[in-house]
Amino acid sequence: MGKFLGGASMKTRSWWGWGWEQDALSDAECVGLGALVPGTSAAPLPVPALTDVAPPAPRLTAPASLAAVVSAEPADRVAHTMGKAYRDVVRALRGKLGRIPDLVAFPESEQDVVDLLDWASREEIAVIPYGGGSSVVGGVEYRGDSHPAVLSVDLTRMNRVLEVDRVSRAARIQAGALGPVLEEQLRAYGLTLRHYPQSFEFSTLGGWLATRAGGHYATLHTRIDDFTESLRVVTPVGISASRRLPGSGAGPSPDGLFLGSEGTLGVITEAWMRLQDPPRHKASASVTFEDFTQAMECVRQLAQSGLHPANCRLLDPGEAELSGADPDGRSVLVLGFESAHHPVDGPLTQALEVARAHGGTARRSEGGTGDSVAAWRSAFLRMPYIRDGLARMGAIAETFETACTWDRAQDLYEAIHGEVGAAVAKVTGAPARITCRFTHVYPDGPAPYITVIAAGRPGAEVAMWDEIKQVACEVLDAHGATITHHHAVGRDHRPGYDRQRPGPFALALDAAKRALDPGGVLNPGVLVR
Amino acid sequence: MGKFLGGASMKTRSWWGWGWEQDALSDAECVGLGALVPGTSAAPLPVPALTDVAPPAPRLTAPASLAAVVSAEPADRVAHTMGKAYRDVVRALRGKLGRIPDLVAFPESEQDVVDLLDWASREEIAVIPYGGGSSVVGGVEYRGDSHPAVLSVDLTRMNRVLEVDRVSRAARIQAGALGPVLEEQLRAYGLTLRHYPQSFEFSTLGGWLATRAGGHYATLHTRIDDFTESLRVVTPVGISASRRLPGSGAGPSPDGLFLGSEGTLGVITEAWMRLQDPPRHKASASVTFEDFTQAMECVRQLAQSGLHPANCRLLDPGEAELSGADPDGRSVLVLGFESAHHPVDGPLTQALEVARAHGGTARRSEGGTGDSVAAWRSAFLRMPYIRDGLARMGAIAETFETACTWDRAQDLYEAIHGEVGAAVAKVTGAPARITCRFTHVYPDGPAPYITVIAAGRPGAEVAMWDEIKQVACEVLDAHGATITHHHAVGRDHRPGYDRQRPGPFALALDAAKRALDPGGVLNPGVLVR
Repeated sequence: MGKFLGGASMKTRSWWGWGWEQDALSDAECVGLGALVPGTSAAPLPVPALTDVAPPAPRLTAPASLAAVVSAEPADRVAHTMGKAYRDVVRALRGKLGRIPDLVAFPESEQDVVDLLDWASREEIAVIPYGGGSSVVGGVEYRGDSHPAVLSVDLTRMNRVLEVDRVSRAARIQAGALGPVLEEQLRAYGLTLRHYPQSFEFSTLGGWLATRAGGHYATLHTRIDDFTESLRVVTPVGISASRRLPGSGAGPSPDGLFLGSEGTLGVITEAWMRLQDPPRHKASASVTFEDFTQAMECVRQLAQSGLHPANCRLLDPGEAELSGADPDGRSVLVLGFESAHHPVDGPLTQALEVARAHGGTARRSEGGTGDSVAAWRSAFLRMPYIRDGLARMGAIAETFETACTWDRAQDLYEAIHGEVGAAVAKVTGAPARITCRFTHVYPDGPAPYITVIAAGRPGAEVAMWDEIKQVACEVLDAHGATITHHHAVGRDHRPGYDRQRPGPFALALDAAKRALDPGGVLNPGVLVR
Repeated sequence: MGKFLGGASMKTRSWWGWGWEQDALSDAECVGLGALVPGTSAAPLPVPALTDVAPPAPRLTAPASLAAVVSAEPADRVAHTMGKAYRDVVRALRGKLGRIPDLVAFPESEQDVVDLLDWASREEIAVIPYGGGSSVVGGVEYRGDSHPAVLSVDLTRMNRVLEVDRVSRAARIQAGALGPVLEEQLRAYGLTLRHYPQSFEFSTLGGWLATRAGGHYATLHTRIDDFTESLRVVTPVGISASRRLPGSGAGPSPDGLFLGSEGTLGVITEAWMRLQDPPRHKASASVTFEDFTQAMECVRQLAQSGLHPANCRLLDPGEAELSGADPDGRSVLVLGFESAHHPVDGPLTQALEVARAHGGTARRSEGGTGDSVAAWRSAFLRMPYIRDGLARMGAIAETFETACTWDRAQDLYEAIHGEVGAAVAKVTGAPARITCRFTHVYPDGPAPYITVIAAGRPGAEVAMWDEIKQVACEVLDAHGATITHHHAVGRDHRPGYDRQRPGPFALALDAAKRALDPGGVLNPGVLVR
């Protein structure tokens, strides 16, 4: 993997928090942050040392044929214990980890995956498929005690672009490739996937596919699904390989069953992905609005205009302030167009006309520092590190996200501020800081992304967050919004997911699970009963 | 239903052939057509009379509670016996119908559908969900003899737009609404679904959803799936109702299981559909090419340009001649842009630059008669009637369609002409007329649509077509193309579908079927084992 990581290979992945160890906030930065949240600690919790964690002895050993790709090293086991949700970071900071996997496998080929699943199915070992480990919904940890052992299967050694079809603009890519790893290989062909979730550096193609990740484009092709031409999935009963097709009407989509299956039906090993030519033309602007309702209405009209902006991120006043995009309490719309084929000043001009008609004040971006588009982009990548810094100061700092139709968006927005705000006040005894942005927008509705920051009580942060989160899920449910737009279900969203999915669909999915994973070893507790 | 049919209500649906009885070709027109296909008959087969068919007595009667919505009338039963494939039309012309359903139900409410499925499940009656009856793949007929009785369930009395959400541009529509019926109701709200398959007048929303129908847009939103916000489906074990969502990452898409399920998992009763504002700006052109390979390359670049033409239909020389778009043996690209929001002359100009760079000669359309865009549109709607006319002259006249990636498109095109052509020559003893158009194009590949016309031997047409069709399916399979892009699988494509779908997916789908339809009564023989 190192070969493809370029400059990043000098850095070390954080075992307890987001991203790179070297990019975590310093103690002084943490203290500065904490000062912004009244009621938090005076000093940060110390950064925990992986060597302080003493995992119990593994309850099994790998068969000799798999020994070369299976590790029982404590460092591997501890680092694969949980994802990177706020509640995971706090548990790591407090030394209260989830169940540490007995072994970690690093398959190097599809046959390794087949052999691992055969072994696990035979021995009824729980298998937790693991890509970049960036899940923020409890997607990569084992909970409960119904399996004799737990095996984390880390796919990141399967990280090669295997084949490129330049004429169809598609590539066959192994599922364990992290974002930068696959982009670096595609660059040699003059092509790009352009899928940039916030976790881009720390998540894999397979993880994106298994969770239906949201990506770069704010409209039109918002989701990794849209770029999926075919999938190869190792299931305990055989390999499912769909045909490379630009479109098909032959029965329900086979890929549709595995996209979003979150490791419960099989391990995705590779995919043919639709690629883009790198954009040669770009135009962007930021628009400020005095009134958020007007800004929402503007974004709705843009989403329904057919202009298809690549970026169309609306920050409410709190979010604009938090991210530095606008310190003056206005809403900010970050608008961008791009094309590999033709100039995009025309559509930007048309979009800015819509914005002005809704009272927006537009400023075209020149790409220099200090402008709000650049400020937003850099804040966006920094946010999870800031969350970790806040966690070290004893603050509650978590996000949740959703989507709903436009007719419900205003009510939902108000209910989130009102009801989740009230829950924070009740749980923490202090007012909440709740901010919102629309990450993606559709003709029929937005995808709001909500950040909650409040002071926690030392040692009780996880319980407090879980209580707030429960209210948040109930608000989403009451407004007919989805439990998740692109963070996935995992274990944390399970109750909301069970309420949301249609009963007969749940029966069908359970039946599919029993057919593909008769031993029930794949990511137990996620999606199916 | 009549209320919403406007002028069309003066016409009568043909029981034996496509569309309206009144629009069928006259005997003289048939003779004229036949003269173009050497080896066909001198006189057309007579139009069969429905009253000449004497169906056997129904093998069951409806319970009293359902008697009001169930018909045992011979006219209803005969008219619901088959779809409208070439092989169906020939069988009707020759008086060799498939198995006539014992009863035809016309449910008027979702509760009627629930009650019908309860009854059918209890009595193990085969249920054939029936929308407009325009299937060209044997999707609405019963084959075999493993059920004690057959019930066709015609949804067209459930044809109302129930609710409109103007702000999200969506409507809740009953599944039995035919194209013109739902568009007429939406017009009152200034909105449109703009889904115009060739069968628009004779197919229903539910049929489109159950078969993942291809629609108006040649790029971007090619399929009814793209406009589906949520579904209600009556299954034998309960009603599956998905949430109205613009997007969701909560597990595999529940709607994805039912889209394309072809009546095997449940009966779709209503859907929230995403709508459009009617286009105010349109611009179109036709481009002729001397060389089809150059034309294909042009279309590939357009499909990858991000210009998103609404129409981008490429006719090969034979197709251009057949449809009257170009009698001089050139390929024709019919190109169109539309928007409700902004002028589209800019993108058309950009697209025509691409066309000229590939040797195309462009002519902007003024919408008058005699131009090739208009000629194409009118020929498009006329084609199925012409097919019936050819069938009456004893010709084989059938279509099949597919999609493949661009890297295989040229080889596939040549193999279709070569190998299917050879099969026609072998079967009929005469050269084939094989023409091709691309109905939809994607960044990673086209959807070719192929017409085959040849002289048949009287009485043997169906067997001859089946032999040719088998070769066509093998060619598609050998080139990694899909067995169907938008005609669906039905019973006619079953062997190709079985080869195409991944084995583990087939296991999952079979398991889902057993969970939702434990009695195995829903559209037996389609998709699942």
